Amino acid sequence: MQSLVDLRTRIAAGRLDPAGAIRLAQDAIAARDPEIGAIVCGTPAPAISGDGPLAGIAVGIKDIIDTADLPTQMGSPIYAGWQPKADAAIVSRLRALGAVPLVKTTTSPFASHDPTATVNPRDHGHTPGGSSAGSAAAVAAGMVPLALGTQTGGSVIRPAAFCGVAAIKPSFRLLPTVGVKTFSWALDTLGLFGAGIRDIAHGLSLITDRPALDLDESAFAPCIGLCLQDFAAPADSDALAALQRAARAAEAAGARISDLALPSPLPEAWARHPIIQDFEGRQALAWEYAHHRARLSPELGAQLDAAQSLVAAQYDDARRSAHRARRVLKDVFGEVDVILTLSAPGRAPSGLGTTGDARFNRLWTLMGVPCVTVPVPGDGLPLGVQVIARFGDDGRALAVAGMIERALAA
Amino acid sequence: MQSLVDLRTRIAAGRLDPAGAIRLAQDAIAARDPEIGAIVCGTPAPAISGDGPLAGIAVGIKDIIDTADLPTQMGSPIYAGWQPKADAAIVSRLRALGAVPLVKTTTSPFASHDPTATVNPRDHGHTPGGSSAGSAAAVAAGMVPLALGTQTGGSVIRPAAFCGVAAIKPSFRLLPTVGVKTFSWALDTLGLFGAGIRDIAHGLSLITDRPALDLDESAFAPCIGLCLQDFAAPADSDALAALQRAARAAEAAGARISDLALPSPLPEAWARHPIIQDFEGRQALAWEYAHHRARLSPELGAQLDAAQSLVAAQYDDARRSAHRARRVLKDVFGEVDVILTLSAPGRAPSGLGTTGDARFNRLWTLMGVPCVTVPVPGDGLPLGVQVIARFGDDGRALAVAGMIERALAA
Repeated sequence: MQSLVDLRTRIAAGRLDPAGAIRLAQDAIAARDPEIGAIVCGTPAPAISGDGPLAGIAVGIKDIIDTADLPTQMGSPIYAGWQPKADAAIVSRLRALGAVPLVKTTTSPFASHDPTATVNPRDHGHTPGGSSAGSAAAVAAGMVPLALGTQTGGSVIRPAAFCGVAAIKPSFRLLPTVGVKTFSWALDTLGLFGAGIRDIAHGLSLITDRPALDLDESAFAPCIGLCLQDFAAPADSDALAALQRAARAAEAAGARISDLALPSPLPEAWARHPIIQDFEGRQALAWEYAHHRARLSPELGAQLDAAQSLVAAQYDDARRSAHRARRVLKDVFGEVDVILTLSAPGRAPSGLGTTGDARFNRLWTLMGVPCVTVPVPGDGLPLGVQVIARFGDDGRALAVAGMIERALAA
Repeated sequence: MQSLVDLRTRIAAGRLDPAGAIRLAQDAIAARDPEIGAIVCGTPAPAISGDGPLAGIAVGIKDIIDTADLPTQMGSPIYAGWQPKADAAIVSRLRALGAVPLVKTTTSPFASHDPTATVNPRDHGHTPGGSSAGSAAAVAAGMVPLALGTQTGGSVIRPAAFCGVAAIKPSFRLLPTVGVKTFSWALDTLGLFGAGIRDIAHGLSLITDRPALDLDESAFAPCIGLCLQDFAAPADSDALAALQRAARAAEAAGARISDLALPSPLPEAWARHPIIQDFEGRQALAWEYAHHRARLSPELGAQLDAAQSLVAAQYDDARRSAHRARRVLKDVFGEVDVILTLSAPGRAPSGLGTTGDARFNRLWTLMGVPCVTVPVPGDGLPLGVQVIARFGDDGRALAVAGMIERALAA
């Protein structure tokens, strides 16, 4: 994989120039993407800035995020060839930092569940997950050092875990979603994929202009609550084993680990996540549903059909439930610094018929809290574990994730 | 003015058909708009539904709200002729109810402060306010019975007060902003303009599918906190007199009135509203600023110039301040049912050089609470008073506003 921090170190030392770094990405895309299918389209001759703290960094942009110089097709034939007027706020920010939004990456239609044709770079017979399939796969295949995804259920953390890369779904609205196609305004969250924790931490600190988010590798002894989320169906045994390995490695590195069962308002809110998502999704995609129902992908079409019968009272009840759960979660974070849990129920499923299950991600998206997935080294397809901190404490989630990453490598 | 409820009553009784009702709007636009300048463009031969609870209702759509059949030009030459792909969620919802999004209405560029060329229908030598200038003026001039605006500071309540119409800025995100150009994602709120309180209440109840929001005219005795917002500069004497008249009328109708001074976290948050607005606005309009700075309107350009120097720590501090204020405001609403305050510092200013001052609106937009403005009958240019309820209690704000409207007419 291409490491953002390594590339920037080489550029800063004069051993690589930004154009050379972008060429590395272009060459990797030309070599790998014909087999992977992570890229929708790209800029053949991009403008390359020589300045800025992300100069030379090629970025993959999930294709529900507007770009002024490339179409934004939402993974749907309804938007075939659609050219937005302006860059999304996050794309403008990347350009201002010197980065090059080089390619658009594949997405499930409107960031929903239907699979793309993208394959998992670790084993082409498996899904890379979704909906941010192309972004996860492009980073995993070493095509780009940084990619943008979005998560409404588990669309950043899950594909990152399946593809063996690091990713963060930051605190709700830390990254601006202006110019990003909406599915659910209460849930949609932009996230970053990178080769390792220090890469996404460095990227996030620059994009948000918050130096405190950059990785602090000084020693500390966090209190980690180990959480199985057993209100969801149980995870696969190898996913549970990876979680235990991560916990033991953290413990050996100085962390204090305790078992954490979440108080009932949290599982109650988890169960209502789909109501909020679908009640808002029905409104957000009302034009597409009214005018192009026949061209919607099968799962999304069925999901929106079912959503038509939701009523406001169900939505209001779900929002109250989420509100209660957020208050309870604050108390939980009075007892532990972070929560360590599963990033996905297991390894990437076989075939391209499903993007996998978001059941270990939904609660945290609904809570709006920062989630970081750390790859757990091992045989076979990748596994990941998820580090979660309180709202606004993205730096702590990254720091503990970095500690676990180093402990697992040791 | 055209009353939504009256039109619907006539249509339901068979005394008017939807096409006839739309023709009334078209005729009024042809007669009045050449002098008023509220309309940007319209559909010459709109599809008119015969069905739906809003069939026959022509709607004016603020021109930062996407329409699939009409350009969306943001009040800015940067977007001249720009044709979005899809209808905004709110436009889709209106069409599903049978309403006809007939015309786009003028807006300050990107819903900012710079005036439009629209005049106040009550006196053409005065501003109609802004940024939802065209929507307020179109309803006031009797061109349409319903219009959509947005409020980030005071862009719904203020122009409604200046033009002598009723309006609601509902609870934050009660109406979906998908497909509405963003200035500040924490603040931007869609609102409705209509001839009277029952018109906006009926419209809102249908659009949100919440029958409880429709106007309940049964007698009740609300506790009203009379609030001068004296942390902002004082209001004009005639505005204060109108507020006292509204309070006395409500009292005569059975309300209990008490003076209300807001606890200090509320004025502290009020003072920080512009930080949140401009820190987000800088990101939301980053593409326009980077590529079209010279074509931005003077006030907006200067506002975004100044916003470039804001730092994340100021924004985070302002958000914490707002969070504290929202908790304190909950306690205030434990003591009073609604707050009654000024809709604007006075009557519409003379000339078209300014859209007026949002200082009595900003706090409530930041709190996300429902605000309804009631016209206060009297001589000269209109005045309005503002009824504010707790978050999610839009029905109560409308009910008390309706009570005051009837009391003032009695």
